[in-house]
Formats: sequence, structure tokens, C-alpha cells
Amino acid sequence: MKQARANVVYFRVRYCDTDQMKSYYNARVLEWFEWGRTEFLRALGKPYTQWEAQGVLLPVCETHIKFLGRAQYDDRLKMTTTATMAGRARLKCHCAIEHADSGEPVCAGHTIHAITDAEGRPIRPPSWVIDLVS
Amino acid sequence: MKQARANVVYFRVRYCDTDQMKSYYNARVLEWFEWGRTEFLRALGKPYTQWEAQGVLLPVCETHIKFLGRAQYDDRLKMTTTATMAGRARLKCHCAIEHADSGEPVCAGHTIHAITDAEGRPIRPPSWVIDLVS
Amino acid sequence: MKQARANVVYFRVRYCDTDQMKSYYNARVLEWFEWGRTEFLRALGKPYTQWEAQGVLLPVCETHIKFLGRAQYDDRLKMTTTATMAGRARLKCHCAIEHADSGEPVCAGHTIHAITDAEGRPIRPPSWVIDLVS
Amino acid sequence: MKQARANVVYFRVRYCDTDQMKSYYNARVLEWFEWGRTEFLRALGKPYTQWEAQGVLLPVCETHIKFLGRAQYDDRLKMTTTATMAGRARLKCHCAIEHADSGEPVCAGHTIHAITDAEGRPIRPPSWVIDLVS
Repeated sequence: MKQARANVVYFRVRYCDTDQMKSYYNARVLEWFEWGRTEFLRALGKPYTQWEAQGVLLPVCETHIKFLGRAQYDDRLKMTTTATMAGRARLKCHCAIEHADSGEPVCAGHTIHAITDAEGRPIRPPSWVIDLVS
Repeated sequence: MKQARANVVYFRVRYCDTDQMKSYYNARVLEWFEWGRTEFLRALGKPYTQWEAQGVLLPVCETHIKFLGRAQYDDRLKMTTTATMAGRARLKCHCAIEHADSGEPVCAGHTIHAITDAEGRPIRPPSWVIDLVS
Repeated sequence: MKQARANVVYFRVRYCDTDQMKSYYNARVLEWFEWGRTEFLRALGKPYTQWEAQGVLLPVCETHIKFLGRAQYDDRLKMTTTATMAGRARLKCHCAIEHADSGEPVCAGHTIHAITDAEGRPIRPPSWVIDLVS
Repeated sequence: MKQARANVVYFRVRYCDTDQMKSYYNARVLEWFEWGRTEFLRALGKPYTQWEAQGVLLPVCETHIKFLGRAQYDDRLKMTTTATMAGRARLKCHCAIEHADSGEPVCAGHTIHAITDAEGRPIRPPSWVIDLVS
């Protein structure tokens, strides 16, 4: 299956992202991934607010993450997000975060999303979803 | 104005609460205060889910916090919550967190809450609110 | 490989755990799992603060989570945590969260932990680690 | 006392910032303020990492916030940060967040910071601190 173009965002580790090990706390990665998806969908031309307005939601139903290296307060990171369909009814978003300067890996993983209506019932993805992601 | 009885909960600092200074991160205090309010209202006999079910909401409109001392991962803390009416239309919750063993202060402050209907419009507090808090 | 006994904790979904879908936000699960591990290690008789004091750390290097059902503000949940060795040098913690009353699943997954010294260098697990977890 | 120039950053509300009321959760404001301070200090020419490297820390010792209006997922916000000395030994950072397009207020407040050495002991602020902030 063809993969949608990737989108890249840059950001810095915030104090609130750190823990007493002086690197980023693991749960923060899922917040970063969420932001990566938001900007990825915007870059595809259809921000997630428009998906919601059309009654198409993407709840996360599964995730896998590898924590690959440290990142400290104020380190500048680069996050790359892309997506593929996972079967006919689910969307799979791939995310990789690395140090912006050195390219040293920070973490990488994916989230798998059900495609549902506003009540959370799985739906057959509208054709515009397939078109966007393919 | 008479003050409702206080409610006490005990908890431990989690890893996710720490930052690279090896103490709790400041924003976490507002999450702790929220939990303190939830348990305070339950102890008064009317959990906040029942307030919501009756269309009475308590959005936070103001807060003041003093950060008084350090608290590290797994430290056992004691949080005391109470409340008063602030004027006729707002609720003021007071929270103080200290080390459970030593009594050394960790932080203290308050949150001020509007009393609104489900659409967020300020309402005159129902008499059961006044009764509960007085 | 034998599996250590499981530890169970109960908790409620907090307001800060919810998002605009009115269920728990996905990243919060990793904070819950962390708390589950902390209490699991305490139940084994060796709190993580003692691991740290002996220079044995357990940084998360991988996680996999399935989000299985909704959970709303103030819902009472039950989290079960256990652990196995993953090969000779890594610890794998298993976590499952369900509704305390109905047993309906909320989420389940695992975290894989490197076993390192205080500088983050992988070490051969001390025998007490193997003994605890086996 | 003269006030340092203000610094402005723009950002969008993330899904993780929302709660079941469909607006931002109150504790997130302290994370936003922290980011505002980080970028404010960078704009002054001395990023906080350099303060830390010189052994000058700014732990938050007090905060006051007014929550003035709603902000929903993906809303574009504008945060303005500035600072003054608070007496001779403390720094006061002022933050105001509004909707980027309409100027409608979201929240406003301040954080007061002790000025300490790396061990957390209050110090007389170095002259470069006074110069930066005045």
C-alpha cells in the first residue's frame, strides 16, 4: 500500500516533559505523536477538526513505541509522521523522533486508529480518507 | 461563613510527577488539587458526578498556589481539602499538601470555582450546594 | 519462565485523565502503568527507591498497549501488574486495566525495561532481581 | 521598576490539553507558562540552559492564574510573556494567553521564582540577571 507523504515538525523538550532521570518521561511521547498526527493531517490538507466536523473520528486503539535514546530539557527534536491504511478499516500512523542536529534517534513507533462515527461505531472509511492516505 | 469539614487523602509522588530537579513539577499540583476536590465532594456525600448529573458544574476560574517545599518520587504526602462559599455565587476550595510523616509543607493554595449550568452559564447555587458547603 | 505474583490496585479516572472524547486520554495509560509497577515492586518487598539506592535502574525501552474500552471521569478501575524476565537482561511488566465492577476491559499492555546502573549502562541483573521476579 | 520587553509565541491547543468539558484542562496552563518563560529567556539572549550551566536556577515558588475563557482543540492561541524583579531576590513572570484571531482572553497570571544556586539555596541575583530583566 502506498504511503502518504511524510510531515516533519521541530520542537524542544520542555521542563514538564522531563523526569528525575533528566530525560523525557515516556508518556510524553504519546502526546508528541498526537501533535505529529495533527500536523500531518493538516499538511495533507484536511485538519482533524474537519474530520470531526464530518463525523469521522480516529480513536487510538493500539500503540507500540521504542524508546531509543535520551533527550534533555531544551534539546531540539525533529518528528516525522506518516500514515498508511492498516487493512480496510484502520489507519496506522508512524512516528519517529530524533535529535534535530545529530540525527541521533530518540524514539519511534506507531499508533493504530479505528475509523468511527461520532458515536464511536466503526465505519467503512469514506473514500476521501483512502484518497488522502494512499 | 462556616467552613465545611475537611477531607484528607494520602498519596505518593509518582515518577511522572517529577522533573529534572528531582522534585514534583509545579503543574501536577493542580491535578492533585482536582483529585482532592473530587474526594472532598464524595466525603460530603455528593460526588461531583452527581453535581454534573443535576446540571451543576464547577469550572475553575482562578487559582493561587504557594510551592513550599520539595517532594521526591515515592514520598508519601497528605492532602487536606476543604471549601467555603466565595461570595454568593462561587465556591472556594482550599488545599494543603504536606509530607505525611514529618508534616513538612509541600504546597498550599486554593481554587475558585464558578457555579454554572451544563452550558457554562453562571447560576444561583441551588440550596443543596449552600447546605453542603456551609 | 515463572511469573512473579500479580499485584492489584484500584483507582478512579480523574478529570485530568479525560479528553474531549469524554474517555481517558491515551498517554495517561503509561502513567497508570508506571504507578502499577511501583506498587508491584513494593508488593514484592523491594520498592523501586531501594533499587535506585543500590544503583539498579529500570528505564523503559519499549511499550505496547491496546486500548480496549472507554472509561469516564470517576469510573473505578482495577489494574493488575505482574512481571517476567525478557531474556537475561531485561524486565517485562504486564499491565491490564478493567472496570472494577463489570470487569469490562479498558486497556492492556506491557513495558520492557533495560536493567542499568546509575549511569544508564546495561548491567547483568543482580541475583536478587532474578529471585524477585521469578 | 522597568519591565523587560515582552515575548510572543503562538501555539495550538492539543488533544492532550483538553478535558471532558471540551476546553483546556487547568493544569496545562502552567505547562504553557513554563514554555512561555523558556522562549522569553531565549529571546532575552540567555536561554535557561545557560542559567543552569552558571548555577542560577529559578524554581517556581508561587503562582496565580485567572481562567478567563474557553479554548478548544486546535484553536490557535497567542501567549505573551514578560518579567520584572519582585523585590531584590525574586523574579516575577507575567503571562497572558488569548485567541490569536479574536483576541478573546483565555487565561492570564504570573509565576514568582526564587533565584537559587544549584543546591536550591537562595542567592543574591547576579548583576546579569538584573540587567536582563530590567
